[in-house]
Amino acid sequence: MHSPVLINKDILSTKNLNKQELLAILKAASCMEKLVTEKGVCPMLTDTLIAFLFLEPSTRTRLSFEAAAERLGAKTISVADAGSSSILKGESLSDMVKVVAGYADCIVLRQSAMGLAETVAGQIAIPLINAGDGHGQHPTQALLDLYTISKELGKLESLKIALVGDLKYGRTVHSLCYALLPFQPEFVFCAPKDLYMPSAITNDLKSKGVCITEVESLEQALQADVLYMTRIQKERFPDQKQYELLKGSFVLKKELVLQQNKDVLILHPLPRVDEIDTHVDELPRAAYFRQAHNGMYVRMALLAMVLGKDIPGL
Amino acid sequence: MHSPVLINKDILSTKNLNKQELLAILKAASCMEKLVTEKGVCPMLTDTLIAFLFLEPSTRTRLSFEAAAERLGAKTISVADAGSSSILKGESLSDMVKVVAGYADCIVLRQSAMGLAETVAGQIAIPLINAGDGHGQHPTQALLDLYTISKELGKLESLKIALVGDLKYGRTVHSLCYALLPFQPEFVFCAPKDLYMPSAITNDLKSKGVCITEVESLEQALQADVLYMTRIQKERFPDQKQYELLKGSFVLKKELVLQQNKDVLILHPLPRVDEIDTHVDELPRAAYFRQAHNGMYVRMALLAMVLGKDIPGL
Amino acid sequence: MHSPVLINKDILSTKNLNKQELLAILKAASCMEKLVTEKGVCPMLTDTLIAFLFLEPSTRTRLSFEAAAERLGAKTISVADAGSSSILKGESLSDMVKVVAGYADCIVLRQSAMGLAETVAGQIAIPLINAGDGHGQHPTQALLDLYTISKELGKLESLKIALVGDLKYGRTVHSLCYALLPFQPEFVFCAPKDLYMPSAITNDLKSKGVCITEVESLEQALQADVLYMTRIQKERFPDQKQYELLKGSFVLKKELVLQQNKDVLILHPLPRVDEIDTHVDELPRAAYFRQAHNGMYVRMALLAMVLGKDIPGL
Repeated sequence: MHSPVLINKDILSTKNLNKQELLAILKAASCMEKLVTEKGVCPMLTDTLIAFLFLEPSTRTRLSFEAAAERLGAKTISVADAGSSSILKGESLSDMVKVVAGYADCIVLRQSAMGLAETVAGQIAIPLINAGDGHGQHPTQALLDLYTISKELGKLESLKIALVGDLKYGRTVHSLCYALLPFQPEFVFCAPKDLYMPSAITNDLKSKGVCITEVESLEQALQADVLYMTRIQKERFPDQKQYELLKGSFVLKKELVLQQNKDVLILHPLPRVDEIDTHVDELPRAAYFRQAHNGMYVRMALLAMVLGKDIPGL
Repeated sequence: MHSPVLINKDILSTKNLNKQELLAILKAASCMEKLVTEKGVCPMLTDTLIAFLFLEPSTRTRLSFEAAAERLGAKTISVADAGSSSILKGESLSDMVKVVAGYADCIVLRQSAMGLAETVAGQIAIPLINAGDGHGQHPTQALLDLYTISKELGKLESLKIALVGDLKYGRTVHSLCYALLPFQPEFVFCAPKDLYMPSAITNDLKSKGVCITEVESLEQALQADVLYMTRIQKERFPDQKQYELLKGSFVLKKELVLQQNKDVLILHPLPRVDEIDTHVDELPRAAYFRQAHNGMYVRMALLAMVLGKDIPGL
Repeated sequence: MHSPVLINKDILSTKNLNKQELLAILKAASCMEKLVTEKGVCPMLTDTLIAFLFLEPSTRTRLSFEAAAERLGAKTISVADAGSSSILKGESLSDMVKVVAGYADCIVLRQSAMGLAETVAGQIAIPLINAGDGHGQHPTQALLDLYTISKELGKLESLKIALVGDLKYGRTVHSLCYALLPFQPEFVFCAPKDLYMPSAITNDLKSKGVCITEVESLEQALQADVLYMTRIQKERFPDQKQYELLKGSFVLKKELVLQQNKDVLILHPLPRVDEIDTHVDELPRAAYFRQAHNGMYVRMALLAMVLGKDIPGL
């Protein structure tokens, strides 16, 4: 008998997941959704303690992960403080993670230093899930995006995906590009000049045969199967006037969608500020709240899989 | 068979609860108290996840609610941060509640904008319990007050209730007035001039036939069945000297109670600062700590009821 | 039948625990470690609610305690906010603890006022565990130190223990001295001049027949069975230059250990800053991470014991 997919594996980046693993996660998430809908809970981690270390503010991701663990019947401990500096008080993150690895069976870590999740994962014996590391990776967001696309459109192969907004610092879009890579995607990038997708990523994707178009307007970006909107953070612009000028060009309105492409699937990792007008919510293909809800099922799947549980229905 | 009282209902204000519902809540709370006393727990919500969103500081109310959920065996997720601004980061509360409604089966919400609890409750499919909305309503506090009065005095009908302190901004007294309304109360209001009960509430109560007296001293207020003390917050007074002058007149001392009316039931929503001298705690009718404890049973009752559970013994 | 050891007892200081109780705690901790290793959980507190009131920042101790409660299947409620002032808002700690005692079956309290844990424990009917009170006591840390020494060295009697660093303000070393007292210890104190062990403690220990040596260098301190390192906090020194001078003399390096005494057991309550070089971690007798892990088992033992549970295997 082969051992379960992903057992004891760290989830650090979507780059480390192959197609078989990605599909297994989506299938497991689907099983979880079915179980929660039918019974409310799936008590398969009742002998397990999961530690949530959120050293950077992230209420939504934390609640989604904790809801996932709770629905699985896991025991939980949490650090939910934004002020990581006051938590660590000079202690290295590495020491802290080693200590917590002695209490828990799995660690979910959010912190601000790119690449640090990978380093500390190598120092402990239990699986670690990266819940966002600075401008680096946010693999569980990408996996829930994948699950949402698959569920809403019925397929993942050969889709045209437009990514809009802050493509430079947005770790969710970086992770999503790599999560989609095994499914022959075509990408459309639409970003303000100072927030282009890093050329390292663009070149890497192109070298793997991905077709990438760069466009300048939402009208053009809307000519796709999926429109993935992201927030443009004011703080990214040294010149606030430039921000105000740009902002308007990247606000999605209901009328524009209806004019240009009413069938486009609209996603957003949330929170939104004003880049999606609330009237867009009325469109049947505006899926960002369903997308957020899917996060719980995908995280249930990941927790159960890295902890080696058999998932009923898988 | 009729459906259970309050099933799937939002608990937003005591104004929305009729006499039958109020009595059902008190009876359910009594069942809960009996079950906890006998067995420690009542695992009737083991398939349920409750989200606590406390976006305004409120340690005591949050702990009471979470203890209630835990004693019922519910799964829980929590936001306990005082700094709601940093949590929301420009996101609307409405978006946040919609996201969390995808994870949870019930939301308990504390936030600072009067009336906003009602708005967001209308946007989600799961029940929402208002745990305090600014200067608006705090229905669960009023319900535990009601439960305490009923338990301590053995009746609710035709009581003379003196409300003392900040009647202008104190949401607990506003909610309590309406919770008592179906039980033919007589009210005595005792407040500093700048902190009178809002005339909209006084007039509304009078129009419903309630007898209201306004008095100026604690001596007069003590001539009642129940003395409900509240905190006067320094910040309410533009002139700090006026605050210092007034404060003294609204401090309850043990001697005064013994002189004026040793049978009066003394309540306070807590936290107190110095408006009840600690020697008052020695009086058998000083019930504010028992009142706080009752909060857990009342909140257990509400959670079980809105989630449609049959309560053993009800 | 005699009643279980420690049932309903407060755990306030290691001074209050006799040898029989200390040995019972160590034995119970050992049972807990065995149970967790075999089954992950020991669901013996499923009908119990434990309140964690951490009014002073202490992520590590809080997580260890909460992990202990969770592994025992207890229900939990928590205050994890550093900002105790904002929590209490003028309310006395005494009032707050009385309120929470109405929700919970046991309280674990961390706060900054020496001796206050004892005062409030006397005001409530449920057991209270002191998780650190300012510069006073930190009994559960001392108990996990004891458990670690016993486990690592196979005995507790007649050991030579060197305590290094801030012996003046370090509550963990104060508690540890008294926890070791029944086991004929010999102490070596090694501290900067301004951070000597308080003479009240030194004299008290001497009057009880304990042999105490004071040394000035790590080389000398290393001539012991156990080297217990602690952090020297910069803030303790009015003159920062003096701190910088001193600091270097109290940094443990791998080479020094190998030269002086490779068999010494190296402990530290964590977090460390730089007083133990990370290369020391490579030594087999560097036990501080195992020491931290042991905290969970010791706290499981204490929670189960004060709540009167029979511990399987004890």
